Amino acid sequence: MTEQELAERIVAQMMRNDAFSRWLGIEVAAVSPGRVEVRMAVREEMLNGFRVAHGGIAYALADSALAFASNTRGRVALALENSIFYPAPVHAGDVLTAVAEEVAAANRVAAYNVTVTRADGTNVGVFRGSVYRTKKAHF
Amino acid sequence: MTEQELAERIVAQMMRNDAFSRWLGIEVAAVSPGRVEVRMAVREEMLNGFRVAHGGIAYALADSALAFASNTRGRVALALENSIFYPAPVHAGDVLTAVAEEVAAANRVAAYNVTVTRADGTNVGVFRGSVYRTKKAHF
Amino acid sequence: MTEQELAERIVAQMMRNDAFSRWLGIEVAAVSPGRVEVRMAVREEMLNGFRVAHGGIAYALADSALAFASNTRGRVALALENSIFYPAPVHAGDVLTAVAEEVAAANRVAAYNVTVTRADGTNVGVFRGSVYRTKKAHF
Amino acid sequence: MTEQELAERIVAQMMRNDAFSRWLGIEVAAVSPGRVEVRMAVREEMLNGFRVAHGGIAYALADSALAFASNTRGRVALALENSIFYPAPVHAGDVLTAVAEEVAAANRVAAYNVTVTRADGTNVGVFRGSVYRTKKAHF
Repeated sequence: MTEQELAERIVAQMMRNDAFSRWLGIEVAAVSPGRVEVRMAVREEMLNGFRVAHGGIAYALADSALAFASNTRGRVALALENSIFYPAPVHAGDVLTAVAEEVAAANRVAAYNVTVTRADGTNVGVFRGSVYRTKKAHF
Repeated sequence: MTEQELAERIVAQMMRNDAFSRWLGIEVAAVSPGRVEVRMAVREEMLNGFRVAHGGIAYALADSALAFASNTRGRVALALENSIFYPAPVHAGDVLTAVAEEVAAANRVAAYNVTVTRADGTNVGVFRGSVYRTKKAHF
Repeated sequence: MTEQELAERIVAQMMRNDAFSRWLGIEVAAVSPGRVEVRMAVREEMLNGFRVAHGGIAYALADSALAFASNTRGRVALALENSIFYPAPVHAGDVLTAVAEEVAAANRVAAYNVTVTRADGTNVGVFRGSVYRTKKAHF
Repeated sequence: MTEQELAERIVAQMMRNDAFSRWLGIEVAAVSPGRVEVRMAVREEMLNGFRVAHGGIAYALADSALAFASNTRGRVALALENSIFYPAPVHAGDVLTAVAEEVAAANRVAAYNVTVTRADGTNVGVFRGSVYRTKKAHF
């Protein structure tokens, strides 16, 4: 199995078992070792009282992208700490894309930047996550 | 209208119109100016592929608590940046409580600490959020 | 040796060998297991081009408080990720106090909130840090 | 004055008046609108009790890069919130480079990613900062 095949198999299995990512309507658009791109459409039930998407929506999409990307290396990786900056609001009907990319990796920990954009290219979430890389292999 | 009544009215109205907080099953447990406590039960559809709650769940609960608490002062407040550290996992059936408290407030910006705990008192989310306070009044 | 004595000995030794904390003029004001309070006076050479303290000054004071507090438990702890929100500026002559307190601890990781205040009580830094707890004992 | 000339003039003036950046030994290596690269050498007096650079050192370099980059647009920008992840330690003698790049900009706020690397290319700081853009022009 190549590194690329391993990455794809891990993400496919994680996505299959991930009930909340399925509720969100997340689709995996691209996978490679250390990098994952996902997509989802924003629905009415995802809005808050200001008629914009709840902050948890862009966050959850980015967090799924982080989880997938940080596990592509083969070992089970667990979220330690995430942060997100919201430059612009998200509305019902928007299609969001999140791209997670590894920016630093040590033996036990690694960091990923995740960018969330609307279809018109506007950045709506600047996210960074750090993970703890366990010794447990996925396969 | 006292400050306490204003805080309660704002949170009640925000909660009423917040579709995603209602999907999460959030209940408002306590409100005072600058402080809000909310609660929710974790359901199967909120889990990820590791059979623990998706990171977006504890985050979304904390983010709702932040949104409510930061708006209690009377002016519309918008999220700027949030971060969350995950000390322990959350499982289906857990009842989570989030307490948001103002820790610093300037004219335009303010910061809140939010603590998310399980019913047994275990801390499962250490969250901080900063908001931009607009000049627009809720009422 | 009690837990309190251990905490004091570790902080005293860390401070003695910490050249940058000494350059900052940091004094340790209080130590207990999981909690440390430090203090420093802001000097002209710590200012930036806007005639306020460089952002690295309040950060470094908080980071020292975090390092001391997270090591009081007896095992060597290493910084993973820190964040700071700046509610108000700091000027030359200000005396800053930072209090670091453990808010969550798992086996391998722990989180601390650190509050930085001026002598008049104004909050000038809302800081949170997470650390990795190694298996290596200080003594 | 072109945008490039404006950016260069602002950074030169900020650096000239920035006592702490001068104490750090920061040199400005490259400037363009929204992007700044800076460099410094780590000295013995910057180390902590573990004989590695105090966490405040890589942070301060990144914070200076953020301050310069976020002011290149012409209006005075003030730090709101910063975070840093430390993938690897820094030692005396290391030459650090920090590159700050704008990743999102709204009218009032903007976010920057800053990467801090050693001369061998190892990433030693993954930093993100958000700023508030005032209406005040530099010139």
